[in-house]
Amino acid sequence: MRESLLFWPVSFKAGVIHILDETKLPAKITYIKVKNTREAVRAIRQMKTRAFGQFLVVLYSFMQVIEQNKGAAAETLLKKIKYAAAALNHSRPTFPFKEVTSIVVHRAEEFARNKQDISPNLRRNIEGHLTGIRFKRLERCCKIAALIKNGDAVLTHCNVSGELAMAAQLCRENKKFVSFYATETRPYLQGARLTAWELKHAGFPITLICDNAVGRLMREGKVDKVIVGSDRSCANGDIANKIGTYQMAVLAREFKVPFYVLSQPSKQTPCGKEIPIEMRSENELLSFNGKRIVPSGTRGLYPAFDVTPAKLITGTVTIDVQ
Amino acid sequence: MRESLLFWPVSFKAGVIHILDETKLPAKITYIKVKNTREAVRAIRQMKTRAFGQFLVVLYSFMQVIEQNKGAAAETLLKKIKYAAAALNHSRPTFPFKEVTSIVVHRAEEFARNKQDISPNLRRNIEGHLTGIRFKRLERCCKIAALIKNGDAVLTHCNVSGELAMAAQLCRENKKFVSFYATETRPYLQGARLTAWELKHAGFPITLICDNAVGRLMREGKVDKVIVGSDRSCANGDIANKIGTYQMAVLAREFKVPFYVLSQPSKQTPCGKEIPIEMRSENELLSFNGKRIVPSGTRGLYPAFDVTPAKLITGTVTIDVQ
Repeated sequence: MRESLLFWPVSFKAGVIHILDETKLPAKITYIKVKNTREAVRAIRQMKTRAFGQFLVVLYSFMQVIEQNKGAAAETLLKKIKYAAAALNHSRPTFPFKEVTSIVVHRAEEFARNKQDISPNLRRNIEGHLTGIRFKRLERCCKIAALIKNGDAVLTHCNVSGELAMAAQLCRENKKFVSFYATETRPYLQGARLTAWELKHAGFPITLICDNAVGRLMREGKVDKVIVGSDRSCANGDIANKIGTYQMAVLAREFKVPFYVLSQPSKQTPCGKEIPIEMRSENELLSFNGKRIVPSGTRGLYPAFDVTPAKLITGTVTIDVQ
Repeated sequence: MRESLLFWPVSFKAGVIHILDETKLPAKITYIKVKNTREAVRAIRQMKTRAFGQFLVVLYSFMQVIEQNKGAAAETLLKKIKYAAAALNHSRPTFPFKEVTSIVVHRAEEFARNKQDISPNLRRNIEGHLTGIRFKRLERCCKIAALIKNGDAVLTHCNVSGELAMAAQLCRENKKFVSFYATETRPYLQGARLTAWELKHAGFPITLICDNAVGRLMREGKVDKVIVGSDRSCANGDIANKIGTYQMAVLAREFKVPFYVLSQPSKQTPCGKEIPIEMRSENELLSFNGKRIVPSGTRGLYPAFDVTPAKLITGTVTIDVQ
């Protein structure tokens, strides 16, 4: 199984965080070098990386803080870690940054309380956490592959950070034929630029459709199942994912198409209503490749996510990130 | 009431058909000069004009044939008219070209049978027909305005050839405040380029959303009614309109948002299943402003229209084009 570049789009080498610049894909494979938390937050805000990539940026940012404060007093390091956590928590509202950073802060406080050296222990702890996540995500690829039947046409939206491309390879190894439909996913075009790219690269039939062609595609019986990701999960099973997921779920129910969500269960948010939905700049919608496509004065509304209630979800393929 | 340029986007002057090039809007207001039926068919195929504009191109094409064959024998002119009709019928499949051309051919045959001079009679006939249509469409603008209540937020998809912008002006004259949401309408972006442009130009609040944000917008209670056009109607009330209309209707029912269609009733197609849906080139989806947005080898599926069944339509605002 060849790993999709989107499966692990961020790395940490010699004190520098290397972020695959997803805004440049598929035209160019290029990595941004991030030297501190401020730059990390900016990269997240500008959507240079997203979804699972954000999780990696957060953990690597803490490793960077540790590395940049070698030999500092426990109190100083703890302060810097908390400062980094606060900055990362405020990068974007919908992804549960705080759920990730609070674990790290909590561990650091524990080490300090127990008079253990924070620096090496926390670093080892984060590294262990990342290895665990890697294993669990590979495990989830197997679970996704098990969901797919021979001959299935799978519709997806946005991009699930490499897992679909890897699950598809497992299907191929097991002689199961699978084909894909991806929505464009306006305005950022994750479906066109990322999903189509990685699935094509992995050698699978992938057909792009406009976001507005989902209803017709399902009505024609061309979709066997929907598999999408999620940026946040709630205690009651509601999930938040890229704008358009919700209406896709409504349409899936209309046509009795099973609707699966890749999720990271969390009990910290009770229900979908509690999820803050990020409203991104209208400029991202009103322009394309830097060129404005609508007359000046026209306003745009760009909620980056929507909430799909648990009742519309056939099943979740989970991973425990904590 | 100021007429939107999209209300009557084609004209016939000195033997030449002038077509507002909608592919250039909103950046440039420019007209293509069409000198014969072959050029007219090409302009339709390239979507230089669409919706009601196609209807005008058809009728003006016949006027052009008449003008170019002044003094010809009745038999010759009839043959040329039938030839033009056949060419126009095959320009695009979903819009009911044949329903329009067959009336003209039928009238021409009648004049010939009755030994009446085809040329002046048919021309006068077409001119009368166009005047009637103009009046009926203005009447429909009044009906649309009557549907809209003070404070309504109207969601629309694609572009209804100027009628919404004119109905909105009637609302304003009657002290009714109305605001609009328009979907982008990928891939041709009629919503962003045409609807947003004409509504903004007429001075109304217009907010653009992605095609994938319809579900969330309705769920938030932000849409009071949907008003869309239709390219073709069936005897049973089903309609065909721009891809995305159907899923918008499903979502409208989910949220009990009234869903209105501007239509031209016709009994010639029994039901939606009989409507041929045009599949346009995948290149129109895979490229943007001439630049490819997906990796080569990725396929695209671009049905230009979909069918909305009568049961999802709250009401039709009709006009009889025959």
